[in-house]
Amino acid sequence: MIKIIVDAFGGDRSPVVNVEGTIRAINENKDLHVILTGDEEVLRKELSKHQYNIEQITILHAPDVISCDEVPTEAIRKKKESSMVVALNLLRTDNEVKGLVTIGSTGALLAGAVLRVGRIRGVKRPGFCPILPTMTGGVVAVCDSGANVDCDVLHLQQFALMGNLYMKKAFGIENPRVALLNIGTESEKGDALRKETYKALQQMDLNFVGNMESRDLLSGDYDLVVSDGFSGNVLIKSTEGTALELLKLLKKAMTKNLKSKIGALILKKEVMAIKDMMDYNNYGGAVLLGANKTIVKGHGSSKSTAVYHCIKQAYRLEKEGLRDAIAAELEKIEDNNQ
Amino acid sequence: MIKIIVDAFGGDRSPVVNVEGTIRAINENKDLHVILTGDEEVLRKELSKHQYNIEQITILHAPDVISCDEVPTEAIRKKKESSMVVALNLLRTDNEVKGLVTIGSTGALLAGAVLRVGRIRGVKRPGFCPILPTMTGGVVAVCDSGANVDCDVLHLQQFALMGNLYMKKAFGIENPRVALLNIGTESEKGDALRKETYKALQQMDLNFVGNMESRDLLSGDYDLVVSDGFSGNVLIKSTEGTALELLKLLKKAMTKNLKSKIGALILKKEVMAIKDMMDYNNYGGAVLLGANKTIVKGHGSSKSTAVYHCIKQAYRLEKEGLRDAIAAELEKIEDNNQ
Repeated sequence: MIKIIVDAFGGDRSPVVNVEGTIRAINENKDLHVILTGDEEVLRKELSKHQYNIEQITILHAPDVISCDEVPTEAIRKKKESSMVVALNLLRTDNEVKGLVTIGSTGALLAGAVLRVGRIRGVKRPGFCPILPTMTGGVVAVCDSGANVDCDVLHLQQFALMGNLYMKKAFGIENPRVALLNIGTESEKGDALRKETYKALQQMDLNFVGNMESRDLLSGDYDLVVSDGFSGNVLIKSTEGTALELLKLLKKAMTKNLKSKIGALILKKEVMAIKDMMDYNNYGGAVLLGANKTIVKGHGSSKSTAVYHCIKQAYRLEKEGLRDAIAAELEKIEDNNQ
Repeated sequence: MIKIIVDAFGGDRSPVVNVEGTIRAINENKDLHVILTGDEEVLRKELSKHQYNIEQITILHAPDVISCDEVPTEAIRKKKESSMVVALNLLRTDNEVKGLVTIGSTGALLAGAVLRVGRIRGVKRPGFCPILPTMTGGVVAVCDSGANVDCDVLHLQQFALMGNLYMKKAFGIENPRVALLNIGTESEKGDALRKETYKALQQMDLNFVGNMESRDLLSGDYDLVVSDGFSGNVLIKSTEGTALELLKLLKKAMTKNLKSKIGALILKKEVMAIKDMMDYNNYGGAVLLGANKTIVKGHGSSKSTAVYHCIKQAYRLEKEGLRDAIAAELEKIEDNNQ
């Protein structure tokens, strides 16, 4: 049995989508047990709408919720009865529980996870690693993208190592193409951190393909982009933000008048395909690589499909043994250095 | 007479578009004199296709060209006869010449400009400041976006000061909304540089509206975004890159089959409006703020309209006295600090 916590609150459509995603995941995987954290009464009512094996779900009462508007560090400290803090505490104390899926506040999760859940032995800093759909129909991951604003070469090397294993285990990519986020493609580009990291990545047992400029993130030429948390965050959010703004603009153009509505109707299938391609609900969430337990964070506006994909992702990473693989790889490097 | 150099080579469509843009600009502004740098014979032939006042154009022979594939620092050092190096040298030596417009290699320009042209008295580091169209029909500027990969608080303060005056002078924005690029909107977000800069910007005589997350760049809520050159570069290129990729995807969807082509035909006007809105050819170029002369850099794939807009921009900045305004403002701060 694989035990995973699902923080049932904190998203825009919680707890409905959290419960729906959970039901779909347990009905598909008979060796999956989900612990839902949140208001017990509300969750019981929500669960009563579904058919499922009651042995596969437990509720852990947590009457409070952390919202996205709260200051993360404060919220984690003060809201001890929140669905996220209760989830993190259980994750820390119960060895049987392997992972956590949440669509709540990213800031609160990052503030709470490292402190409460701890790191894999040898990991300097866990890296936050979201994925984005590419123009060629695949995905690209960026690590780190917000957990660590100040990074050194060793941190970036570890992001590369962990992200590389992640792309193998989670997406079955045999030899992930790993790139370094930089302001130009030549090897001598960027600041001191980039120049040193470039050389360090060349020495590693990786398919390092060189520097990547931010404009090429969605090209499909890369599987993993290594970055400090500050510029990785800028990269991810500007890419998502621009795509969203353009889709909004397109929607507006297509509903402008009767004529444009007719054109839109004819093109509906093609435009929906673009929207679908860019829709994070069809992919998994972001993973906190290097944390001692599997932690998957879905978008706050996730629908139940997205929650389902996040749970599947956590389940798969457990089955594939990502944590052990990271620990083993880090030990190997340590041994080599001694 | 305002004398401006136009580097006539180095772009994808050079020198045709450079000459066309120049002709349009001088025909509109009788007090503008353009010095074209580049192969004299080629330029004479190109000019012979147009009607213009010959007193308004001079050719400065420069048989060589720096391409975008060359290592910038090397190219600037070695290609002494290139249209860009010849332009930069004239800019340095001739006090009468006030500005330079180029659509050649950004790297070469940045490598050459600061060294050869120098800085306004008091400016620590010139900042590269491109503009992007926003979703509300305006523009937003980002400074720095690639000239300085390592920045301290004072550099960012100066980018804010210079960018603020630039938005006033070039776009007539009375009270530019200035934001700091960060990974969250709360004042305590980001690394030490961001936290300190936040406080410093609050103390300045600016309409500082706080931190901006990269996803909101195109929202229309900001006029100037202050950043270090590394993350500013990531921001600009990922925003442009994502917009381009999505427009490509849309084009593909609209030409997929006969049915989608019919839909596209009906929607043509609306989709062209989106493309136009995102088209940099309709805006000016990026400005190197703090350099001792006005330097405007257009996209390498600029058409003649874009070159025209870049020349107009340089001309306007001269007329509006941006350089003197920056110098005066810096002196005021220096006096206050004494």
